[in-house]
Amino acid sequence: MDVSDTRAQEPQRFRDGLADHMGSFLESRRQRLEAISPEAADLVSAVIALTSGGKRMRALLCYWGWRGAGGSTPALPTIIVAAAALELFQAAALIHDDIIDSSDTRRGGPSVHRRFEQNHRRQAWALGPEQFGQAAAILTGDLCLSLSEEVFASVQADRQGVTPGQIAQARQIFDAMRLEVMAGQYLDVLEEVAGPTRDREAAADRARTIIRYKSAKYSTERPLGLGGTLGGATPELLEGYAQFALPLGEAFQLQDDLLGLFGDPAQTGKPAGDDLREGKRTMLIAYALQGASTADARFLEESLGDPALNDQHIARLRRILIDSGAVAAVEDLIGECAAHSRTALATLEIDEISRSALAEIAEAAVHRST
Amino acid sequence: MDVSDTRAQEPQRFRDGLADHMGSFLESRRQRLEAISPEAADLVSAVIALTSGGKRMRALLCYWGWRGAGGSTPALPTIIVAAAALELFQAAALIHDDIIDSSDTRRGGPSVHRRFEQNHRRQAWALGPEQFGQAAAILTGDLCLSLSEEVFASVQADRQGVTPGQIAQARQIFDAMRLEVMAGQYLDVLEEVAGPTRDREAAADRARTIIRYKSAKYSTERPLGLGGTLGGATPELLEGYAQFALPLGEAFQLQDDLLGLFGDPAQTGKPAGDDLREGKRTMLIAYALQGASTADARFLEESLGDPALNDQHIARLRRILIDSGAVAAVEDLIGECAAHSRTALATLEIDEISRSALAEIAEAAVHRST
Repeated sequence: MDVSDTRAQEPQRFRDGLADHMGSFLESRRQRLEAISPEAADLVSAVIALTSGGKRMRALLCYWGWRGAGGSTPALPTIIVAAAALELFQAAALIHDDIIDSSDTRRGGPSVHRRFEQNHRRQAWALGPEQFGQAAAILTGDLCLSLSEEVFASVQADRQGVTPGQIAQARQIFDAMRLEVMAGQYLDVLEEVAGPTRDREAAADRARTIIRYKSAKYSTERPLGLGGTLGGATPELLEGYAQFALPLGEAFQLQDDLLGLFGDPAQTGKPAGDDLREGKRTMLIAYALQGASTADARFLEESLGDPALNDQHIARLRRILIDSGAVAAVEDLIGECAAHSRTALATLEIDEISRSALAEIAEAAVHRST
Repeated sequence: MDVSDTRAQEPQRFRDGLADHMGSFLESRRQRLEAISPEAADLVSAVIALTSGGKRMRALLCYWGWRGAGGSTPALPTIIVAAAALELFQAAALIHDDIIDSSDTRRGGPSVHRRFEQNHRRQAWALGPEQFGQAAAILTGDLCLSLSEEVFASVQADRQGVTPGQIAQARQIFDAMRLEVMAGQYLDVLEEVAGPTRDREAAADRARTIIRYKSAKYSTERPLGLGGTLGGATPELLEGYAQFALPLGEAFQLQDDLLGLFGDPAQTGKPAGDDLREGKRTMLIAYALQGASTADARFLEESLGDPALNDQHIARLRRILIDSGAVAAVEDLIGECAAHSRTALATLEIDEISRSALAEIAEAAVHRST
């Protein structure tokens, strides 16, 4: 068997199956909403638009987690369904996250709340377009969260190649993932408001807890573990997966923080500096507040969370983040996490095709520009 | 067997079991959040505070739907779990609904977003208290929705007295309920903004669709059907349940609309006139716009959605709603729905204890003051 061919074909078959499953499921739910009222279908149309994009990183980790654990081909439909649930969960989280962070764009287009807001303006409807956009996006996110769950529940025990015990264990992972993300997101918004009053020395630790829960576990560890579980992974393999995935997820989020400030908006699909305007207290900020001069640290503190920051402000803040050594420290940390992740990957007892595919996903996650 | 004794004892045993199950489940999830970070437990504390109140109408309908279908006692734990999922779903919907409607109070206390906002002010944290309150409440609602689902998924096929087929059918009802509520809520906010530009003659029909989906089905029809399904109800009994429950749910929501305007805030736990300030286009408003004088209709249109409406405005609007015949029309409709509901109840093939309990719930729903 030619390894590179298999690596190209297998995930393509999986991706196609995933797109088909999500497409037909969402279309069937669109029809149900339309039967209630044609306008109610707007909700799922927003979900369809959002989920047609994205890198499918979580879905692919789920797939290779299953494949690496020796999952047998008859179970492929089950893995596709589980991965679809992960993608819908991710979409739900993004929709609400964009409201919380007042983000205007997502995946290169307007965020869901802005999309509804724009429709309101276009139709010249009554009352506030912003409030309408937000209400509609809260409901779209709720629907998407419910649909994610509906899909996950359809991972049935009677599917070939997967046991009821594996499904029960997968559900525990799915439930834990949701709890973790919501906790991490809450700690994130809490740190924005409470951070300035708290111990500056401990800020990096708090920021690290936040990225672990709001991002790392759910972006990498949980999808991989979910797939592994459905593939019949041993507890040792699941532990090995976590050793590989958690630092990878941290590196992924740290890279995201850097991209949000130094990335090309044309590639990231988001304006640079939004995290600063929103007041996110990332590892980068924690390091900068420790390493910067008193004057720079004060300017940084005063700027965080100011929605009116202009390009000049952002440029000065970028300079502070570099000069304070924060950027270098975060880059070092990314390197360290990536190294831990690579070491763990090398020792995993999985086939070489899966190892190589996971290595590729890991490199793309760490060295990405979008 | 003394009927009145059984009627008092049975639901009490159920209510106690429900409170125990919700309490221990939420406490276990609080501990999981606390293990992530003590502050993350704030999220579930808000859910515990909210779910300790409420009338448990949906849970009781689920119970009597099961009991009326001849559900056997060994399945009681399963019914308690299903009812707990309904109560948590209701809590999630209320948390997000209160954000959408900018409601300050719920069940006599501050709404969840206001609770977080107040905490922000008390701690004198940075950035906007309102934005923090809203972000935290979006996440609390998401967590509550996920927990509701987690509880529902624990209705296991291996429980005594319930078959896998019944559980699969119950899941379809649960999924349909969520889709319907979100559709209804969306149509509700859409009507607030798009209503003024639309056909006034059709406004009552649109308002009726909204109350069916955002409230009636999910408050009565779906909980009763869910319980019935788990109790092994025949398709005929489920159809009979729907004939009883849907008009009851409509009467319940119409009564809610009247209470929001004419109820005693000390009893309803909400300030009078909030629906007007929010711009809700209820059946009451639809009838009033048809029946009022041109001047009154214009004043009503101009007032809807004005958050600054004072007591005098509200008093004048109340007068318009009465003089236009809208209040009488809604009261007639409530009477009509209640009559349909009673007729359907009388013909249900269920035992007299269940019939009598359902009649009592129905009367309380229609003739309520809170």
